[in-house]
Amino acid sequence: MAGNTFGQVFQVTTFGESHGIAIGGIIDGCPAGLELDVDFIQTELDRRKPGQSKLTTQRKEDDQVAFLSGIFEGKTTGAPIGFQIKNKDQKSKDYGHIQDKFRPSHADYTYEKKYGNRDYRGGGRSSARETACRVVAGAIAQLILRHHGVEIHSYVQQVGSLILLKEFDEIDFSKTFKNEVRCPDAEMAEKMSDFILQIKKEGDTIGGVIQTVVKNCPVGLGEPVFDKLHADLGKAMLSINAVKGFEYGSGFCASEMRGSQHNDEFVKTEEGIRTKTNYSGGIQGGISNGEEIYFRTAFKPVATIMKNQASIDTQGKETEVTGKGRHDACVVPRAVPIVTAMTALVLVDHLLRSKISQL
Amino acid sequence: MAGNTFGQVFQVTTFGESHGIAIGGIIDGCPAGLELDVDFIQTELDRRKPGQSKLTTQRKEDDQVAFLSGIFEGKTTGAPIGFQIKNKDQKSKDYGHIQDKFRPSHADYTYEKKYGNRDYRGGGRSSARETACRVVAGAIAQLILRHHGVEIHSYVQQVGSLILLKEFDEIDFSKTFKNEVRCPDAEMAEKMSDFILQIKKEGDTIGGVIQTVVKNCPVGLGEPVFDKLHADLGKAMLSINAVKGFEYGSGFCASEMRGSQHNDEFVKTEEGIRTKTNYSGGIQGGISNGEEIYFRTAFKPVATIMKNQASIDTQGKETEVTGKGRHDACVVPRAVPIVTAMTALVLVDHLLRSKISQL
Amino acid sequence: MAGNTFGQVFQVTTFGESHGIAIGGIIDGCPAGLELDVDFIQTELDRRKPGQSKLTTQRKEDDQVAFLSGIFEGKTTGAPIGFQIKNKDQKSKDYGHIQDKFRPSHADYTYEKKYGNRDYRGGGRSSARETACRVVAGAIAQLILRHHGVEIHSYVQQVGSLILLKEFDEIDFSKTFKNEVRCPDAEMAEKMSDFILQIKKEGDTIGGVIQTVVKNCPVGLGEPVFDKLHADLGKAMLSINAVKGFEYGSGFCASEMRGSQHNDEFVKTEEGIRTKTNYSGGIQGGISNGEEIYFRTAFKPVATIMKNQASIDTQGKETEVTGKGRHDACVVPRAVPIVTAMTALVLVDHLLRSKISQL
Amino acid sequence: MAGNTFGQVFQVTTFGESHGIAIGGIIDGCPAGLELDVDFIQTELDRRKPGQSKLTTQRKEDDQVAFLSGIFEGKTTGAPIGFQIKNKDQKSKDYGHIQDKFRPSHADYTYEKKYGNRDYRGGGRSSARETACRVVAGAIAQLILRHHGVEIHSYVQQVGSLILLKEFDEIDFSKTFKNEVRCPDAEMAEKMSDFILQIKKEGDTIGGVIQTVVKNCPVGLGEPVFDKLHADLGKAMLSINAVKGFEYGSGFCASEMRGSQHNDEFVKTEEGIRTKTNYSGGIQGGISNGEEIYFRTAFKPVATIMKNQASIDTQGKETEVTGKGRHDACVVPRAVPIVTAMTALVLVDHLLRSKISQL
Repeated sequence: MAGNTFGQVFQVTTFGESHGIAIGGIIDGCPAGLELDVDFIQTELDRRKPGQSKLTTQRKEDDQVAFLSGIFEGKTTGAPIGFQIKNKDQKSKDYGHIQDKFRPSHADYTYEKKYGNRDYRGGGRSSARETACRVVAGAIAQLILRHHGVEIHSYVQQVGSLILLKEFDEIDFSKTFKNEVRCPDAEMAEKMSDFILQIKKEGDTIGGVIQTVVKNCPVGLGEPVFDKLHADLGKAMLSINAVKGFEYGSGFCASEMRGSQHNDEFVKTEEGIRTKTNYSGGIQGGISNGEEIYFRTAFKPVATIMKNQASIDTQGKETEVTGKGRHDACVVPRAVPIVTAMTALVLVDHLLRSKISQL
Repeated sequence: MAGNTFGQVFQVTTFGESHGIAIGGIIDGCPAGLELDVDFIQTELDRRKPGQSKLTTQRKEDDQVAFLSGIFEGKTTGAPIGFQIKNKDQKSKDYGHIQDKFRPSHADYTYEKKYGNRDYRGGGRSSARETACRVVAGAIAQLILRHHGVEIHSYVQQVGSLILLKEFDEIDFSKTFKNEVRCPDAEMAEKMSDFILQIKKEGDTIGGVIQTVVKNCPVGLGEPVFDKLHADLGKAMLSINAVKGFEYGSGFCASEMRGSQHNDEFVKTEEGIRTKTNYSGGIQGGISNGEEIYFRTAFKPVATIMKNQASIDTQGKETEVTGKGRHDACVVPRAVPIVTAMTALVLVDHLLRSKISQL
Repeated sequence: MAGNTFGQVFQVTTFGESHGIAIGGIIDGCPAGLELDVDFIQTELDRRKPGQSKLTTQRKEDDQVAFLSGIFEGKTTGAPIGFQIKNKDQKSKDYGHIQDKFRPSHADYTYEKKYGNRDYRGGGRSSARETACRVVAGAIAQLILRHHGVEIHSYVQQVGSLILLKEFDEIDFSKTFKNEVRCPDAEMAEKMSDFILQIKKEGDTIGGVIQTVVKNCPVGLGEPVFDKLHADLGKAMLSINAVKGFEYGSGFCASEMRGSQHNDEFVKTEEGIRTKTNYSGGIQGGISNGEEIYFRTAFKPVATIMKNQASIDTQGKETEVTGKGRHDACVVPRAVPIVTAMTALVLVDHLLRSKISQL
Repeated sequence: MAGNTFGQVFQVTTFGESHGIAIGGIIDGCPAGLELDVDFIQTELDRRKPGQSKLTTQRKEDDQVAFLSGIFEGKTTGAPIGFQIKNKDQKSKDYGHIQDKFRPSHADYTYEKKYGNRDYRGGGRSSARETACRVVAGAIAQLILRHHGVEIHSYVQQVGSLILLKEFDEIDFSKTFKNEVRCPDAEMAEKMSDFILQIKKEGDTIGGVIQTVVKNCPVGLGEPVFDKLHADLGKAMLSINAVKGFEYGSGFCASEMRGSQHNDEFVKTEEGIRTKTNYSGGIQGGISNGEEIYFRTAFKPVATIMKNQASIDTQGKETEVTGKGRHDACVVPRAVPIVTAMTALVLVDHLLRSKISQL
């Protein structure tokens, strides 16, 4: 009801504010018997954490996850998995200057109106710091998906107007995390990196797009009508801070296409029934069809900029705000593991749900 | 769990197949005391029904909704509202030719794999006929929203590459339903109409885009983190048959923008605190901020075309399919009331949820 | 949220008032591939319907269930199952006399206060007529349980102070429906029958107890902590009209027992691990252990009596009410199939949920 | 789905095992603006904790709750409240002797079968230690109820065959926590205390009953049909470890009563409409009617006894178990705050749900 839980069977509930004591969560519905590869989980977290490179905010967080329950002798027991990440570098004094002001395009104003009060330190609950918890849960979801051979590959496809035009089947996904931008094409990655640094120097920020490709997804995931697989993927992506759009398969381009061009004809192959093309994006009627699932997620530029902006204070008076502290000039590089995590959460939830489709 | 329910407080559950006895649903969580304007509900249904014009399928359905419970002396009682629409024009013989074949880009193959059997008549449960039930529930949701002054305006913005470029604040929404295309600009509507007829003559189909604008939405709707208002709107739209993409506010364009350009500065006005621009699309941090909410929903071309297509039958053998029966060449004109209905369902659900935010 | 849905995986939502057009429901989450034995479903409904014998109300209802969706060629398809029972014998004029009065120990007063209005005809939504929908859904649940060999036996154990003292393993359950009281002991059944008729003649009503025994329940049903199997069974029974108490296994007697007496020691048998005694009632730690599950459900006397009672009208003035129309002198005989239905709904829901416990 | 969440609006999810690092939980849906009386919460926790008196287990736990989020400047913010209680006195070596054995009437066997593995230390997740988290959440729920004047009084009514026969309106609830048994009658409390010590000396355990009385509950709480107020109360109580039965109002006695005797006639009083008697237990048709709500919860004797018992080991071989460590001879004194907590959780959830009943 209050929106802090995701999933119907594999359910993650998160808590925590940017500058509180800790953030954390509970994963309920994780099947028993899963070996927990803690190194993998920490690696995913490290890919999200701030202060990794010159491109990102210099906020220093270890982001060490501690598991408190649900695991015994290295395996999940079926009991809920409680976990926690302490907030070490809280520096809440940095935020005194915005205590009484509504920062443009942040959630300050809407939280104040909705709740009547708010934890203004670093955005409180509205901070993207919360997504670290999603990465933990998503990493566990990925461990389950591995048992089924499912692979998720997300990468930065666009920063500002710099777009990687290669089709995803020409891409070597093993190169994505070889650079700070998380674009698997080294040449484009460098261009993007230079561009972000330039933007940063100007005290400004820039948007971008992440592309995700899922390989080896089993046929049959997704519930028809309201919980179509792509509808749940869309909701998952749109729930990530700063996301403005989602499209899968042919996406917005489909609106300009004809049926005769867009339909994916079926063909018989050695691997079984496949489709000749894949405008459907691996999902037909809301249910995975065994082809590659792919989708794009659009991010707006980060709202905190190092420039003067007109605003209003909590008394309703006109004022100005200027960003202080440590912020990203472009959020997409650090958002790559978050997008992957949310994808994994949706897929595992539907994988478990699909166990009940037939008698 | 099985995906036939939408909403958390104002919940609609639907049932029914394209060629079964009836379709219908139950609305649970509708507050008591609402006067039920049955004419308005029927008007919304009529806007969706097939056979309305030369542009749409000639399937003849009265689509008369009957309310079976939850209403007494013209008002809702707080009890669940059961409703039903009989399927009159069932002609299931039309579908014998596809009983054993998987139609390209339909849900035949995925349903068969997921469930082990399927009602092949007219797509069964995967048919867009199910959306008539959403229109009924959405119309009741609109009646509640009216009490709060909220208005929802959806219209066809694009058919193929024909795009209405006017900003929505230049548009007279009262003209949307004056033509068969549901584009509020008469000139563009005619172009679109001609184009769709041309496509139809060719036995082909074409995609399109619907734009939605919500006026007078109260501040404070939407739950932070997973159930952000735009995340739930996105899921709602993506759950409609044939939708491939969703964007709100600045949408995909945001990925090319800078923060200094994209941020919506606050200004003091006679109406209270407003924003100078509205790239946020009326939603900040997942919560409505009182500005106009706007979003775009992209539809693919209808999969049923009157042309030969390669396919596979249920025995795994190669075969061909050709569309028969009565189908739309372009789905967006009839999808306008569906998009509005889903928007209303999301807004009412969050309106009721918001009652619990403060002590 | 509004309480008209039961179950988490196998979910039934019901609608309908006592004197509305129809009652009905939607079953969502029924696995595909189940052969629907419609005769069995109707038999269960017939056991609940009014007017069956001289013991029960003479209201005449055919209670013919019509299935509207989710079934194709005799089997479930995985799509939601919509069903409906028309209200034939509505006689709403019988209820004019209570339109403005609150009947003692009925729900008139609380509905009026909660909703601000109410359908006063025959109790409207608060009528036990709603339970017919539970019987339909429960009968389908029983069909699934049969595949797993699970049997549910409910019977009348007590009417007033007439108690069948036999242990359930001495009872021949095949005799339960051989008499109108639904007590499997012919001698006791006759005593109960005579007693109920006597009570009826006096214009009064009497309470009773139903005992339920579940045989062959698989080990492992029930979720620990909040959704313990017996907690869900308890809620299910307490949700039936007129129920005042629930106990399972040793029940209230356990409060007077010592651990050394109450503990069920484990023994090795040819059938595997069993317990020597079964004070646990087949459930340990909230999870079924393979022993027989048994519980007792207590019903109050029906509130409608043919005697004058002091009351208050909707204007707050003192008044009197006397029962009119057709009512049961004792509800337990007709409640037997309802208790069985609710038991089946809980068990099937947990059976499906248990599929996800292990990797 | 996995049963570790309680409530629909005011939702608490718990995690943690008896001998893990910590137990804790997340409360989601707590309205913003509530002043958090941390002392009161800790007092409730202290009433549940082990080692309080000679009657209870000597396990030493501080049971200090730490709040990690959702609170700012002493008030709730509407964000989820994460909390944690560290397990200090873990002594897991005490449990080596039962690692491979199934203790009679514990959850060892059923957990092993359900999950394929288990954390055997002190019962792991099945331990009543989990209920400390319920007490934390329930105490916060009580703080909300206080705003509405609602009071909850639970007390020990029965230990073995020692029963306090006084009606609850003759009882001075302020005396409940004046003694170790939590029976508000000093004389009976002493008898119970002596009896429990005798049982303890014998290495045995004994059951009991807790009575709960709710005063000043607003009219209108409870959702008709499946989520009747007493059905949710029943589920809540039955979800507490060792509970075997629940009855409200007239309870099991109702089965022996006549309608003319059991019906609660309405009367006009200075305080408004009241009922002359209260066999209904403050709930009619599943909805609170403003009278006192009262119910009884029956507990079995604790399963751990200091005597030899026959059992089976995980290899299926016959063996014996004897209790070691520190256990309660009677659980009801420490269960009083747990019963109160679960009552508060149900009432607050329905209080918030009731905000949506009318337009």
